[in-house]
Amino acid sequence: MEKISVFAPATVANVACGFDIFGFAVDSPGDVVELTRRDTPGVRITDIIGDGGRLPREAARNTAGISIQRFLQHIDRTDIGVDVLLTKQMPLGSGLGSSAASAVAGVFAINELLGRPLQTIELLPFAMEGERIACGSAHADNVGPSLLGGFVVVRSYSPLDVIKLDTPAGMFATLVHPDIEVNTKDARFILKNEVSLKNAITQMGNVAGLVAGLLKPDYDLISRSMVDVIIEPVRSILIPQFGEVKQAALDSGALGCSISGSGPSMFALCRDLATAERVGQAMQQAFLAVGITSEAYVSEINRQGPRVIG
Amino acid sequence: MEKISVFAPATVANVACGFDIFGFAVDSPGDVVELTRRDTPGVRITDIIGDGGRLPREAARNTAGISIQRFLQHIDRTDIGVDVLLTKQMPLGSGLGSSAASAVAGVFAINELLGRPLQTIELLPFAMEGERIACGSAHADNVGPSLLGGFVVVRSYSPLDVIKLDTPAGMFATLVHPDIEVNTKDARFILKNEVSLKNAITQMGNVAGLVAGLLKPDYDLISRSMVDVIIEPVRSILIPQFGEVKQAALDSGALGCSISGSGPSMFALCRDLATAERVGQAMQQAFLAVGITSEAYVSEINRQGPRVIG
Repeated sequence: MEKISVFAPATVANVACGFDIFGFAVDSPGDVVELTRRDTPGVRITDIIGDGGRLPREAARNTAGISIQRFLQHIDRTDIGVDVLLTKQMPLGSGLGSSAASAVAGVFAINELLGRPLQTIELLPFAMEGERIACGSAHADNVGPSLLGGFVVVRSYSPLDVIKLDTPAGMFATLVHPDIEVNTKDARFILKNEVSLKNAITQMGNVAGLVAGLLKPDYDLISRSMVDVIIEPVRSILIPQFGEVKQAALDSGALGCSISGSGPSMFALCRDLATAERVGQAMQQAFLAVGITSEAYVSEINRQGPRVIG
Repeated sequence: MEKISVFAPATVANVACGFDIFGFAVDSPGDVVELTRRDTPGVRITDIIGDGGRLPREAARNTAGISIQRFLQHIDRTDIGVDVLLTKQMPLGSGLGSSAASAVAGVFAINELLGRPLQTIELLPFAMEGERIACGSAHADNVGPSLLGGFVVVRSYSPLDVIKLDTPAGMFATLVHPDIEVNTKDARFILKNEVSLKNAITQMGNVAGLVAGLLKPDYDLISRSMVDVIIEPVRSILIPQFGEVKQAALDSGALGCSISGSGPSMFALCRDLATAERVGQAMQQAFLAVGITSEAYVSEINRQGPRVIG
């Protein structure tokens, strides 16, 4: 194969109660990486479309580029040369797993291009290296669901233990990205290093309830469990109108609503498409009430992860 | 009906990673409550067998007695009179949910005796009142599984939200009660009020993993998830030989091993009966190495909760 084009999905990390351990993928938006083999060795970013010139073009500093480089080093094929064309189809720094989608699309594409030398799950560490370049830490709660699809639990980092959970058929996610910026490093910096045992117990109960709700499945239990007493009360102060937007989502029938990743995007889970669309409109209106425009995305939970599109 | 006899099972609370939120019931041991209607109103403890005279005979101060009293008040039938004969079939203060089993047996028996005015799940608050008398707090992680059977998540106390999970068919529990005493209040007192965010995240990952492992089911995932980085490192110092006993269980094939409730009993989960018996022997030998005798119980996970035995 000489050329391949791969789409990898956006993701919602944390999912209310599951800070640093839960994430799920959506069908849209997502990023596209097109790889073309070339004769001279090395990974070269030929262009990035849709980033407004903000992302590094140097492969070793680009989340897709570094993931592909590490993959080629691992399989001992640094003799291979590829041109990378990255098309960003979602806002940067939005809390929707933008860097993860690019990294996953890149490493999934190179593995396909070379005839699948590795299993999909084995690609995870290389995509995590992309996260390290983009965010400063090799976290897996975005790349995990983007690569595997579905709802993912990152149980442990050493050793890496990522578990895919089935989700109820027909469950929809609404993502709303307000046109404001939150620096991911700020969003982590304001968190406290200690939590009360009482809050930790409450959170563990909700973590258990959400996993049980997804697997049973039990929508009411999912809804009751989408409560975050540790992170959301702190991070939500960085998102203007957070309380109003969340209440608008719940009033419109969302199972739950919280911050997507480190924000500023917010997400809601819903029982069906009609509810998810109504919830998206209500959330956008609540942002607009204070003059904040936004983009809304409504989609099913993505089940397959990345897909070859050309 | 004039007379009824009910068995309610012992329980393991916490279950490694799930402090205050997880518990499961076993088929044995357990307590038996025999109720006999009498003409004069009020709840009377006629005798308690097997407690060595240590439990209060006054109904309002006895965990079974108070549960029955609160039930009768709730259904507005304080005109009813019952004699209560309580037979303890497990050690007191052992961490095996002794007070919970008595409370559950009592309230389940009175509900049956009166023709089931309430659903089983509705009996939970009355059994919790028994726990309040016995332990100082109306916790549900023993009475929940003793009443409902199986593996139970206490997701929330306000409102009370108790979720029953299916467990893999054929999973066995080994309980070992060393002949030493740990005061439950001491066991709670030595816990810190704060936990690090890092440890809370690790624990949440294991909570999610254990629930997923039980529901999938996936024994390896159950095993990897039975890790407690918050409570066990503190409480285990109250149990002589804890590390050796745990290692003996794991070396003998247990999926995991930790403290049962607040101790001093320890439990292990196992894939089958033969392993559970081998694990029990290994744990007892490890206690015996420092001269501590013990009782071991091996049983399947109880699935039905209390049962009428006469």
